Amino acid sequence: MTNRPPDLDRTVLDLIDSKTKPVGALGQVESVALQLARATGRPAPRLETCELTVFAADHGIAADGVSAYPQEVTRQMVLNFLHGGAAANVFANAVGASVRVVDAGVAGDPIEHSDLLPRRIAAGTRNFRVEPAMTEAQRDDALRAGRALAENSPADVLCFGEMGIGNTSAATLIAHKVLGLPLAGLTGRGTGLDDAGLARKSAVLGAASERTATTLDAEAALAEYGGFEIATMAGAMLGGALTNRPVLVDGFISTAAALVAIRIEPKAERGLIFAHRSAEPGHSEMLEALTARPILDLQMRLGEGTGALLAWPVVRAASAMLTDMASFDSAGVSGPA
Amino acid sequence: MTNRPPDLDRTVLDLIDSKTKPVGALGQVESVALQLARATGRPAPRLETCELTVFAADHGIAADGVSAYPQEVTRQMVLNFLHGGAAANVFANAVGASVRVVDAGVAGDPIEHSDLLPRRIAAGTRNFRVEPAMTEAQRDDALRAGRALAENSPADVLCFGEMGIGNTSAATLIAHKVLGLPLAGLTGRGTGLDDAGLARKSAVLGAASERTATTLDAEAALAEYGGFEIATMAGAMLGGALTNRPVLVDGFISTAAALVAIRIEPKAERGLIFAHRSAEPGHSEMLEALTARPILDLQMRLGEGTGALLAWPVVRAASAMLTDMASFDSAGVSGPA
Repeated sequence: MTNRPPDLDRTVLDLIDSKTKPVGALGQVESVALQLARATGRPAPRLETCELTVFAADHGIAADGVSAYPQEVTRQMVLNFLHGGAAANVFANAVGASVRVVDAGVAGDPIEHSDLLPRRIAAGTRNFRVEPAMTEAQRDDALRAGRALAENSPADVLCFGEMGIGNTSAATLIAHKVLGLPLAGLTGRGTGLDDAGLARKSAVLGAASERTATTLDAEAALAEYGGFEIATMAGAMLGGALTNRPVLVDGFISTAAALVAIRIEPKAERGLIFAHRSAEPGHSEMLEALTARPILDLQMRLGEGTGALLAWPVVRAASAMLTDMASFDSAGVSGPA
Repeated sequence: MTNRPPDLDRTVLDLIDSKTKPVGALGQVESVALQLARATGRPAPRLETCELTVFAADHGIAADGVSAYPQEVTRQMVLNFLHGGAAANVFANAVGASVRVVDAGVAGDPIEHSDLLPRRIAAGTRNFRVEPAMTEAQRDDALRAGRALAENSPADVLCFGEMGIGNTSAATLIAHKVLGLPLAGLTGRGTGLDDAGLARKSAVLGAASERTATTLDAEAALAEYGGFEIATMAGAMLGGALTNRPVLVDGFISTAAALVAIRIEPKAERGLIFAHRSAEPGHSEMLEALTARPILDLQMRLGEGTGALLAWPVVRAASAMLTDMASFDSAGVSGPA
């Protein structure tokens, strides 16, 4: 919470309390408004445009059977995003956000499509059970690519989503190594593993964890266990937050990226607004560790940025409260008797 | 849950499960989609327009000091709505909803404004501590006026809000008499009473309650303790729900109107979607009695329809999931391995 006028909070809180409503009556919308002021460095930022960027990549760990779905689904879903048929697309339309799709490293040949943004680091990561998922150079390339993508976005508010079969496993190990939280509480069913699948995933992640030190710093954890979509998203979160754009953080995997971004540059935290609480149980553990209070709790666990998108109208309303709502004085409304 | 094809639920659930996402991964958005199908009687209703109608009226009980604000605020806020400066206006703009304002019975002379819909029953209710708030004829006139207003709305989805100094007191007594819940758990600080004010409000409501039988049917409770804005809103909820339009129910006072509507015509329940959980503690008691699971929990307690408005994008997204999202078949995406 640096780099802003020390009296910004006081200015914003006074502004909110001047509006025609009882003090505190807009609850968390008022808290979000304060976050928007901190994120932008302005007491009444007008936020009218929102863009979702979906980062897709594949994971070597998928070969170990940690997902209910086959790896080819990552590529198939990229095409679904490009054709407008995924949940992220229809939610974006419903809330008035635009969508970009980034290939950060999908397995197989490059996908040819005029609307796809190619930022391929490699055709998927290596299997992190037996070796580092990526090299340090690949990690840094991904962070840099994401940062540039966000810096070049014209939108007032940035949402990020992800697609990558196996990526709850990657996010689980990042959280485990960076936060020091037990693996058990972070390991969930992802896209829908049954009990046998969950036991297999737990065993695989346990073996993968033993390969490195008990805890790792964020950049090391990202190279050891991350995905190219997670690394690129972490870079994009840095790029958005450090150019004073509010970033809406989606669910479990996006929060792992946010954790990396915050550890790389703590100043980025002021720009991150946690959009929703995922039904993936490890998400609540990560949110608690980050002392984040998300806006929505709709028991969603899809990713793709769907939770971030549904929080955008609340964020927009919070901004509009600051910029457009009348004060008791301007509207000639009496205060408490 | 009558008047719909008995296999509608099955059709909708199968449709949702055909979409390109793991089964259940959109959580409560999927539940809302099912509610939309039940409300409209169609498996995939396209819902693109939303209108907020704000009903304003005054309450004789305000003379007993049950609110932190003076009665004149009702009229001042009507003008604020008409000038676009209230929270409801800026939230409506943020989520793409239109706004109508109805004078259902504001104290004093009629308000002259070309955009105001005059449906005045009287210049405020009588003081329900000492006598019925309204006559049965007034109640029926208000119900009828609200019903017509909703029936004539062109919007796909209807939000209703209210403004009326003293109306948490009216809503508290309606819930108390109709649901048989203890007054203590239903009586809250409203717009922001201090401890002394809350004690005064509790004493006034206790005295008002003693004037009638322990429990009352909804229509009797509405005449004894209601407000013209609550009665008109209850009628509007009936008019919307019974013409197959989803109605987004706002907070504490709106839920009292919803309770009346459901008791007058149980079929209306299928059309009511509870938008948010208010910070007014009695709201959770009412929601529990109605077995309602609201969409949002943002600790808001403003009324005006602000909670209903913020739920509209989620409702729109749920509709878009049904109408626009690709299936595994249509998108060529593989199912679970």
